[in-house]
Amino acid sequence: MPVHSPPPRGFSTAEFEARLDRAQRLMRAGELDALLLTSEPEIRYFSGFFIELWESPTRPWFLVVPTQGKPVAVIPEIGGAAMEQSWIEDIRTWPAPAPPDDGLSLLGRTLREIAGAGGTVGLPMGHETRLGMPLAAFDALRARSENKFTDATSIIRALRLVKSAAEVAKIKHICAIVSGAYSALPALVAPEATTDEIFRAFRVELLRRGADDVPYLVGSVGWDGYGDIVSAPRAEQLQPGSILVLDTGARFDGYFCDFNRNFATGSRSDAARRAHDILYQATAAGLDAARPGATCAQLYRQMAQVLEAAGSADAAGGGGTAGRMGHGLGMQLTEWPSLAPWDETVLAPGMVITLEPYLRLGPGRMMVHEENIVIREDGAELLTRRTPAEIPLLPTNDSHSTSDRDYDAPTTY
Amino acid sequence: MPVHSPPPRGFSTAEFEARLDRAQRLMRAGELDALLLTSEPEIRYFSGFFIELWESPTRPWFLVVPTQGKPVAVIPEIGGAAMEQSWIEDIRTWPAPAPPDDGLSLLGRTLREIAGAGGTVGLPMGHETRLGMPLAAFDALRARSENKFTDATSIIRALRLVKSAAEVAKIKHICAIVSGAYSALPALVAPEATTDEIFRAFRVELLRRGADDVPYLVGSVGWDGYGDIVSAPRAEQLQPGSILVLDTGARFDGYFCDFNRNFATGSRSDAARRAHDILYQATAAGLDAARPGATCAQLYRQMAQVLEAAGSADAAGGGGTAGRMGHGLGMQLTEWPSLAPWDETVLAPGMVITLEPYLRLGPGRMMVHEENIVIREDGAELLTRRTPAEIPLLPTNDSHSTSDRDYDAPTTY
Repeated sequence: MPVHSPPPRGFSTAEFEARLDRAQRLMRAGELDALLLTSEPEIRYFSGFFIELWESPTRPWFLVVPTQGKPVAVIPEIGGAAMEQSWIEDIRTWPAPAPPDDGLSLLGRTLREIAGAGGTVGLPMGHETRLGMPLAAFDALRARSENKFTDATSIIRALRLVKSAAEVAKIKHICAIVSGAYSALPALVAPEATTDEIFRAFRVELLRRGADDVPYLVGSVGWDGYGDIVSAPRAEQLQPGSILVLDTGARFDGYFCDFNRNFATGSRSDAARRAHDILYQATAAGLDAARPGATCAQLYRQMAQVLEAAGSADAAGGGGTAGRMGHGLGMQLTEWPSLAPWDETVLAPGMVITLEPYLRLGPGRMMVHEENIVIREDGAELLTRRTPAEIPLLPTNDSHSTSDRDYDAPTTY
Repeated sequence: MPVHSPPPRGFSTAEFEARLDRAQRLMRAGELDALLLTSEPEIRYFSGFFIELWESPTRPWFLVVPTQGKPVAVIPEIGGAAMEQSWIEDIRTWPAPAPPDDGLSLLGRTLREIAGAGGTVGLPMGHETRLGMPLAAFDALRARSENKFTDATSIIRALRLVKSAAEVAKIKHICAIVSGAYSALPALVAPEATTDEIFRAFRVELLRRGADDVPYLVGSVGWDGYGDIVSAPRAEQLQPGSILVLDTGARFDGYFCDFNRNFATGSRSDAARRAHDILYQATAAGLDAARPGATCAQLYRQMAQVLEAAGSADAAGGGGTAGRMGHGLGMQLTEWPSLAPWDETVLAPGMVITLEPYLRLGPGRMMVHEENIVIREDGAELLTRRTPAEIPLLPTNDSHSTSDRDYDAPTTY
């Protein structure tokens, strides 16, 4: 496997101009006079502003997008120098934190200036969005403003659903880094390691290989499958024959991968082999069905059919009640769309999604596979290195010398 | 320095009972019939529920606190098994994501049941809070509910301002881990390392020493000082005589430290020595003033006086316009209170805060110190290992053999 060099960090000004141009066309079509953005990914999308201080809820940050011309930043003084490094020119700051007003008057004046008195301000209020300021502050702004506030989720969603070539390159890079780390995992794990040690070692390995950070790393251990796919592991020794799953969202330059890998410790039970095989086939069906023009609901059903054909209705991913089998990803670990019966989003080139079929194996027991793909003109391109067709092995005290012929050796990627 | 063993993970049921009891007393005093919690730290505080899936904005999570009896969880099905590990017993789930309702009806019914028809529901809406669900969903809930919704920030703030012994132990542990890593940094840095390589090595070192994750790591390089304290470093080689600052919020069991360290590369300029010394003295004044009964505004002024006495008004931290010189920390990188002229919060035993004096050195240039403390009956207890009185040195190509007598050798902590 060749050693890739990382794609360039940041984006060209031309890319921000193109994003803004698409947004302003949609704003005019939707009769919006301004967009108000308050969350980290929304502000980063239009400005390139990327700082970890979003961990702090103390200060709100705002970006106002007009129908003509560049966005205007209304931000705490502490971020002024960093914002000046971006392509944004009109940067208005206040010495935050300064309750109770804390930038609200400045924001209100800016909105009136840009949207006009009585003008309509759109902001993302819908599914998968969050307000990046205190609710009482927004309520006060809305109550005393002459501007009307309306939901602009559909605009932001339409823009962010389709990734640019530069965005795809970042996601592809982090997928390659993490694929290499998963391949290296069996060699990293000492037979006596506890699960929390394995996860810590894996986190370090991701950084060593070039991930910038690892905001999401969860996993579970169980027999044939596991009951919980959202928790961090407890400190326990791996028992021979159990299944270990790791699922990670690591980032490069602010873009996520999101995929998991299952491992069998020491040996593969028939049940685990069979579950792994069914999920492998379901993913294959998803890869085949993920083409421009197909809907997310259709893609969901293609995977669900494989699961249903292979087992009972109970084992089949559960039809309409059991959530989804994949989702978008990018600046966030999960983004629109959902691979679910209710999501009729039509796939288009540039969309980056996970394929995530899961199999219920009994009460409180399941297995999940996950791969990341980008939709191209002629179908799906895998961004992750496909999981092996046979569930890979981890060493245990009972199987020191097990050589795992099915899994790639660690690479220097 | 002794090698500490980590404090136990999680909290006792008695601790959750005590938190709930305090909350319910405040709720009755404030005539609230229920609390609605929607953000990660709020829900974790009352339930212990701690998962990284909060990285995903797809699904909202809710906890409803009654005036009598345990909190009720209203959460996505995917988190049910994890919530069952907590002390919460009444767990109501829906198969999220399922827009447009997506749990809203279930939440509305639960609020009516717990608060009563027409009852008052408090939720945090004020400074430093965020709503953990889409705004349109909350607007719909509020519009069609028989319940009244009101701001309960003061209750959550009062509870979380004062940390328990178990909370302080977690913060103290991560402070000790990071203190050790800062001490080890000069030995970690190859003379030809670029700043991004130094930051990556430091992140790995934090994990190796026992940090669970590193959600915040920023820094900067400059001459005598630096212009930006919120960005990640660019890839550049350290120039002899420049100042490198790192500032990190790493976590153990979900609790943050938040402190920085300044280093001089190769040699110390007079300007850097002097700035470092003034800030060291300002911190000392803060340590002395941080006692039960003092207000945050008083503590701010004690530090500001040292800065003003040592330099021009311009160099003095800027009086009322320049933000703050410290803040609370805990489950979040920054929490209430603020060390600022406008914050009259009275310090009390168990409060954990940062002391963060900063010095403007000229246009676009500053230096900042930061330590973490807990307020005890008899004054401040340092949680961080105090920065050396002389600014510590990093090796450069010009100073391979510089031995840094002022800085601790790496420890095995």
